[in-house]
Amino acid sequence: EEVSKLLQLKAQIGEDDGKHQFVLKTAKGTRDYNPKQMAIREKVFNTILGCFKRHGAETIDTPVFELKETLTGKYGEDSKLIYDLKDQGGELLSLRYDLTVPFARYLAMNKITNIKRYHIAKVYRRDNPAMTRGRYREFYQCDFDIAGQYDAMIPDAECLKIVYEILSELDIGDFRIKVNDRRILDGMFAMPWKEVRKEMVSEKGLSEEVADQIGEYVSLQGGMELAERLLQDQKMSQSKQACAGLTDIKLLFSYLQLFQVTDKVVFDLSLARGLDYYTGIIYEGVLTQTGIAAEAQNSSGAEESVSVGSVAGGGRYDGLVGMFDPKGRKVPCVGVSIGIERIFSIMEQKAEAEVMYKKNPKLLSQLQYCEDSGIPLVAILGEQELKDGVVKLRTADISRADLIAEIKRKTSEA
Amino acid sequence: EEVSKLLQLKAQIGEDDGKHQFVLKTAKGTRDYNPKQMAIREKVFNTILGCFKRHGAETIDTPVFELKETLTGKYGEDSKLIYDLKDQGGELLSLRYDLTVPFARYLAMNKITNIKRYHIAKVYRRDNPAMTRGRYREFYQCDFDIAGQYDAMIPDAECLKIVYEILSELDIGDFRIKVNDRRILDGMFAMPWKEVRKEMVSEKGLSEEVADQIGEYVSLQGGMELAERLLQDQKMSQSKQACAGLTDIKLLFSYLQLFQVTDKVVFDLSLARGLDYYTGIIYEGVLTQTGIAAEAQNSSGAEESVSVGSVAGGGRYDGLVGMFDPKGRKVPCVGVSIGIERIFSIMEQKAEAEVMYKKNPKLLSQLQYCEDSGIPLVAILGEQELKDGVVKLRTADISRADLIAEIKRKTSEA
Repeated sequence: EEVSKLLQLKAQIGEDDGKHQFVLKTAKGTRDYNPKQMAIREKVFNTILGCFKRHGAETIDTPVFELKETLTGKYGEDSKLIYDLKDQGGELLSLRYDLTVPFARYLAMNKITNIKRYHIAKVYRRDNPAMTRGRYREFYQCDFDIAGQYDAMIPDAECLKIVYEILSELDIGDFRIKVNDRRILDGMFAMPWKEVRKEMVSEKGLSEEVADQIGEYVSLQGGMELAERLLQDQKMSQSKQACAGLTDIKLLFSYLQLFQVTDKVVFDLSLARGLDYYTGIIYEGVLTQTGIAAEAQNSSGAEESVSVGSVAGGGRYDGLVGMFDPKGRKVPCVGVSIGIERIFSIMEQKAEAEVMYKKNPKLLSQLQYCEDSGIPLVAILGEQELKDGVVKLRTADISRADLIAEIKRKTSEA
Repeated sequence: EEVSKLLQLKAQIGEDDGKHQFVLKTAKGTRDYNPKQMAIREKVFNTILGCFKRHGAETIDTPVFELKETLTGKYGEDSKLIYDLKDQGGELLSLRYDLTVPFARYLAMNKITNIKRYHIAKVYRRDNPAMTRGRYREFYQCDFDIAGQYDAMIPDAECLKIVYEILSELDIGDFRIKVNDRRILDGMFAMPWKEVRKEMVSEKGLSEEVADQIGEYVSLQGGMELAERLLQDQKMSQSKQACAGLTDIKLLFSYLQLFQVTDKVVFDLSLARGLDYYTGIIYEGVLTQTGIAAEAQNSSGAEESVSVGSVAGGGRYDGLVGMFDPKGRKVPCVGVSIGIERIFSIMEQKAEAEVMYKKNPKLLSQLQYCEDSGIPLVAILGEQELKDGVVKLRTADISRADLIAEIKRKTSEA
């Protein structure tokens, strides 16, 4: 009512001379999309959607928040990054951290044992964001998953085919799809890989021999023939788990050959993914090209679950639905998530680079353009800079109101 | 790590015999959309999107949460319905309550004084939901707004034209668009209308004469001629505010005539909208038809900001952007929000009604269909029921896991 009266008063007085003490910003790690960015976003979505639909997927939607307990115990250490809602006398709620756990909850709740679905929506992680690097606390995921009992490795191969098709169509540079299997990692070391590596470099120390062996395995890359070779490997073949993984990798590559995508897929024993719920095959699509893609690569921070340059990732999670089912009934699932934010930022850079292919682009008009389009950093490389062997890095103008927030941001990033 | 080990263990053991104590449900007042519902949703969105784009609007997107202070003081009493996030050592954040306030924040932050934009996204209100009635705590809004200095009433008329086009195209029954002006309400009573009505019916009591006068005004409906008549009205013409509102209504109707939409638009002095930020014209699209639409009407609860059967609403808010601008610079805005959830539920009912136009639909197969499609209530009117003059109301089967939650829900609704 106060505000209502103030508004009326204001309307009567006409011009307003008040200074409002709002901090004019979006929440940390989030951003608005302007119409130009939305156009790029729509283009990327349409490519991805087209592919998902071609592969016969339906779509579902789930609420942006789940009961807190639905998310508990699904993400391992990363659970600390989950956004909780304030308890306002109701249920304990949390913002979704990915689309996979809500999907598993949906399957169990509706007793669905068979579906091919895609879901494009935002997820939330209280990560330390580096916004110019295309990492946000609110970001889109584009997920495609196949739930149901099928002949081994056929749905898995389809997921890889989808990554292949989308990354080819988007035309954002050359890429590779790395494949591994959680059981190979687990079996190989009889304990989770990260633990081992920690021990390797820490005071505990493994025997030199074991460390050498690990280093050797991890450097291995190949295709079906590597899986075959490792199945003959004396040490490796001692682990039942690892053998199961290797057999599946072998089978997978036979389907990948049929799908004609083996030119981009590589069996890479160094690939590990952080999420707890994977039970079998895991994979990641990474950009390999120099130039724009490399720029995005270099600037991406070290991340346990995402390799440098990673734009897609996924794997098999046969146990997750069972965790929700009252009787523990399992529904085998495999899926892939397209890391759309990095793709957006690459497409935006591409768009800008294209736009400024003009005759005689004046420096000032270029800077103006950057300011208008919200490009936060400008690298200037003119005659003087070439002579001096330096690059000028210029921050776009910001409003006075944003100054303090901006300084805080810059200093906290350093 | 615990879970990781458990998962491994589970994979080794094979079949899982554990009972998991998860409550398998979505958060109160929210729902999943299954593929069938998504198809309907997509159809409705496409109609609305098409109209917005025809009218030359661009789109933006904003984060799902805002700084809490961004939302503070914008929604009057309803502010208590805002979802706050837990303070996890960062900023105080809240889920967006509508798309209008984030839009105003966006304009002020980016110093935009001129834009025609649409935004289709979910908003959050901790309302007491009645889910079978198409009211949720998480729901979509489809907003179209025009910001900028234009000749009076032209953007306002375009917003009404948009409501007219969308409701016609969606083909969900006959409708009316009620129009009023906040200044008429405010001016007429020299205080907010709701206050007056409260006083009218409470112990305080207005003089019988004033109450009669109010009752008379409020029963008035018409078009341009009504605005003209009220401008001559002795009491009304004493209020400068009311006159400004009436003059604008008159002008508005002249544009509506040009747009050929006056057959559905009515100047209705009983229309009031709850949000604090409106400064001028306000309007609401309501369904008038019997049948499906009436069903939706009857079941919608009393709501201060939304009339019974309301499927669209909006108005002019010339002061909101200025509340965000550090110098209080105003940007005149007018907009409309399509209440898509009620439209979804009408379309879903229509879809179901169509589907069951079958020869000899067996009762059991109908019930099975309802169960499969997640229709929560079934009204049975067979020979026996006709004879007895009753209707059997049957709840769809629910899973045992949901039983307690369902009983709680039913009893808390009663």
